[in-house]
Amino acid sequence: MNQAAIGIFDSGMGGLTVMRALTSALPSEQFIYLGDTARLPYGTKSATTVRRYAMQAAQALALRGVKLIVVACNTASLAARELAASLAPLPVLGVIEPGAAAALAVTPQGPIAVLATEGTVKEGAYARAIGGRATVLQQACPLFVPLAEEGLIDGQITELVVRRYLEPVLSQSPAPRTLLLGCTHYPVLREVIRRIAGPELAIVDSAQTTAAAVTELLRVRQLRADRNAPAAPRFLVTDAPERFARIGQVFFGEVIDPDQVELIDLQ
Amino acid sequence: MNQAAIGIFDSGMGGLTVMRALTSALPSEQFIYLGDTARLPYGTKSATTVRRYAMQAAQALALRGVKLIVVACNTASLAARELAASLAPLPVLGVIEPGAAAALAVTPQGPIAVLATEGTVKEGAYARAIGGRATVLQQACPLFVPLAEEGLIDGQITELVVRRYLEPVLSQSPAPRTLLLGCTHYPVLREVIRRIAGPELAIVDSAQTTAAAVTELLRVRQLRADRNAPAAPRFLVTDAPERFARIGQVFFGEVIDPDQVELIDLQ
Repeated sequence: MNQAAIGIFDSGMGGLTVMRALTSALPSEQFIYLGDTARLPYGTKSATTVRRYAMQAAQALALRGVKLIVVACNTASLAARELAASLAPLPVLGVIEPGAAAALAVTPQGPIAVLATEGTVKEGAYARAIGGRATVLQQACPLFVPLAEEGLIDGQITELVVRRYLEPVLSQSPAPRTLLLGCTHYPVLREVIRRIAGPELAIVDSAQTTAAAVTELLRVRQLRADRNAPAAPRFLVTDAPERFARIGQVFFGEVIDPDQVELIDLQ
Repeated sequence: MNQAAIGIFDSGMGGLTVMRALTSALPSEQFIYLGDTARLPYGTKSATTVRRYAMQAAQALALRGVKLIVVACNTASLAARELAASLAPLPVLGVIEPGAAAALAVTPQGPIAVLATEGTVKEGAYARAIGGRATVLQQACPLFVPLAEEGLIDGQITELVVRRYLEPVLSQSPAPRTLLLGCTHYPVLREVIRRIAGPELAIVDSAQTTAAAVTELLRVRQLRADRNAPAAPRFLVTDAPERFARIGQVFFGEVIDPDQVELIDLQ
């Protein structure tokens, strides 16, 4: 079982920032990534629909014999507990809890400003995970995902859009002390966000914190692999493998060979 | 049969610009609009997937007894002929052919610049419909749909984005004489597009031209209704009725009552 792969899924490419952090933190592990590109994005869809899609994605990974599933999508992480209950004893880990814990560790009283998709904001997922321990401000940033997928990770348009979303949050009183990037697409916009937010604010990125949580979970459950050189990661998508490979490298930080991307059907 | 409704479908809300033109052109007709919001957008998805989704949407409308189906989505219009063949004798009309015909009518030799989604550009749908009669330039504008759905139909960000996509097209030689708005979301950005493109270029909008084509088809097939006061339009969506009602009014130009939006399942 220890040599089995770690499964990761997201609506599309954003989760590749989590995969990037994971492959770097866990070089002996094998990874399978599933992007539900036929139905992306999840961020504008209802909780009921996102739960259904997430269950289908998790089941597809379970069928492929993974030892652990990472829900590398903030919007879909609202379903992480149900997935864990339904797929037990297979462990399922979302990005919300590690992100919330990391933000609290940096600024225990907050205020913590959560930047996220419409879906995550509407569900109040981070506020629930933080559970009244700190003041939480929320800001939906619907243009961040399209900007990131367009490769517009810097420049005047990106600056203006980041300013548009950040200014209402930064002008709150008391002002936030931590910005939590509550969508796996957002880390590629981190430099612009840092420039607009200024040097004082802590920026917490769920990709990094989720990699730490996965590492800890593997240790506790004694599930770590001990390969010297794991095989290249596998990529599964529900649509448009070529587009996934082309745009995905912005998020993964490495070239993705389109021939390595397999088309599957979740319905 | 003449009193039956006209069915319209789109991946989401963009097709409401077509519905708006249709309700204005055909005040005696009843309309049913279907937005496949659980799987929007179609513009970044593969032709195979879009064909499958379009067939499910068209069948759902056919089951509701419509007399005509309008594919109010440029990306899905690539499937219009197959839908027509499969649902015959029910007439099915896409937006590509009327848009191409209108652009040719305005500038018979072109050049015609088509602004569209990635999917429509990749399929070369307008170039095929124009069929060598005029020079066609194509430009994918992936940020237009998210901007329009965010309600950002004017202002500095929108101007910069429009400039980003238009400048490479406007600087071609010979320069385009017509801009064809090849996505049903784009008409809400028309004023900014006009400002950047200048007063000389013709702007053709498939919503208007499709309304004219539907009017003509109803006349030729003797399918026009003769109601004095048709019932309010029906709206069907596959996800998030509240969001559809809220954002949809930007495109429809009228308030949409969320209680009038029915949730259905296409799978």
